[in-house]
Amino acid sequence: MSGNREETVKWTIHKYGGGTFTEIDDEIAAELPLTIRLDGEEFATIVCTPSDLTDMTIGFLASEAVIRRMDDIAGLRLDESRGFVDVELTRKQSIGKDYYAKRFIGSCCGKSRQFYFHNDVRTAKTVMTRLQISPEQCFDLMAKLQNGSAGFQRTGGLHNAGLCTPDELLAARTDIGRHNALDKIFGHMLRNGIPAADKALAFSGRISSEVVLKTAKIGAGILLSKSAPTDLALELAHDLGITAVGFIRSGSMNVYTHPERIVAKL
Amino acid sequence: MSGNREETVKWTIHKYGGGTFTEIDDEIAAELPLTIRLDGEEFATIVCTPSDLTDMTIGFLASEAVIRRMDDIAGLRLDESRGFVDVELTRKQSIGKDYYAKRFIGSCCGKSRQFYFHNDVRTAKTVMTRLQISPEQCFDLMAKLQNGSAGFQRTGGLHNAGLCTPDELLAARTDIGRHNALDKIFGHMLRNGIPAADKALAFSGRISSEVVLKTAKIGAGILLSKSAPTDLALELAHDLGITAVGFIRSGSMNVYTHPERIVAKL
Repeated sequence: MSGNREETVKWTIHKYGGGTFTEIDDEIAAELPLTIRLDGEEFATIVCTPSDLTDMTIGFLASEAVIRRMDDIAGLRLDESRGFVDVELTRKQSIGKDYYAKRFIGSCCGKSRQFYFHNDVRTAKTVMTRLQISPEQCFDLMAKLQNGSAGFQRTGGLHNAGLCTPDELLAARTDIGRHNALDKIFGHMLRNGIPAADKALAFSGRISSEVVLKTAKIGAGILLSKSAPTDLALELAHDLGITAVGFIRSGSMNVYTHPERIVAKL
Repeated sequence: MSGNREETVKWTIHKYGGGTFTEIDDEIAAELPLTIRLDGEEFATIVCTPSDLTDMTIGFLASEAVIRRMDDIAGLRLDESRGFVDVELTRKQSIGKDYYAKRFIGSCCGKSRQFYFHNDVRTAKTVMTRLQISPEQCFDLMAKLQNGSAGFQRTGGLHNAGLCTPDELLAARTDIGRHNALDKIFGHMLRNGIPAADKALAFSGRISSEVVLKTAKIGAGILLSKSAPTDLALELAHDLGITAVGFIRSGSMNVYTHPERIVAKL
């Protein structure tokens, strides 16, 4: 994992086991509240793991439809010790806070979307990709994601998100927050001009509606997860054309939506 | 578990195992975005499990320092099918949205608090309680919490929060969101006038800073968890006088802060 600062810190604990307490040094996941200021004004505070904060900021702004491309950012200055990142936009815009948060209720393409937000409906597009992947490749990618995460193994408190082709794990990012790990991947893709149409996302966390929306915003057509989904997430995945695969564990997995992209042998 | 609506729904999946796909009906965690309106104005949207929504709303408003007691609410109307809850406050107040979200940076009692928010600093008080608990009681309470959650066992996607005395699990609440499960407990306590000083909280999710702040707002002095903590959470727990216990699993556990409340035998 790359990292600007340590993703874990030491802590002295009282460990109980075999009927007695022992004082030992343990490793704990680090947590930082990072406040994003847009043209000097506070926009959002994200509680996160202090690594890849620039990528996370860019991915978050793209997820929130504040930016579309890297050109939309004129400048970015990270002050990690105080937990601030200042972003200067190319075109000054007033982020209507009311608009930003307003629920979107009404008829729309799919029934799942009636529950969602203006900016999500604007940003999340239906994914059209011919990418296909085999179950063996899914198991392999998930194993690579897990094995690559030293932080998770040491602390038990971190999520991983990976950017994949069917054969390779191209990049992996870590965070205590599910969404942040994905935003770190999104920012990495934007900064490096990596296209999404031929990529899958691998993910350690639960498949919630926000995770599916983020996958659609990134533009990936396949979402692989170790964990369980929710019903709203699956309705969104169905409507947005995303193949959602959950509970990927040693030889078994569940395909919830768009199974046509999962083929027994390639 | 109590519930206004089903916490799980059915979904047809393509299950892969032993080299082949089988189409089966599976059970999935339900997810609902609930928008809270205060005196007619949109205040927040919470993505949650559709059960105990009234308790969750009350707990959330108390956590956000919008209310202190049940008296502060003049009326509450839940429209679950559209995902809205309308709350009428006794004293009209304009919730300064800027104030509400503003980061608090400056010197304060403990070093952890410099990272946090105005309303958190106002609401979270240092917990003073003489409550003590033994490791055996911790194991027993965590087992009761786990066994009581049919939804988690069936879907693998839900968090549980429990209100406990050292010997008993008094109430348990379920949600896809960690914070929501705790807010459902908080609302239950406020509605029923249940004091916190002699109670512990048992929790299936990770110990993050927000979970510790919520524990302090509820006023419980002991937080028991199956999962890992973060460093900021532990700094807050130390400063706020909360005993944080993590990784509670079959005969072993880690005591991170204020170990004086965990005694080998009572």
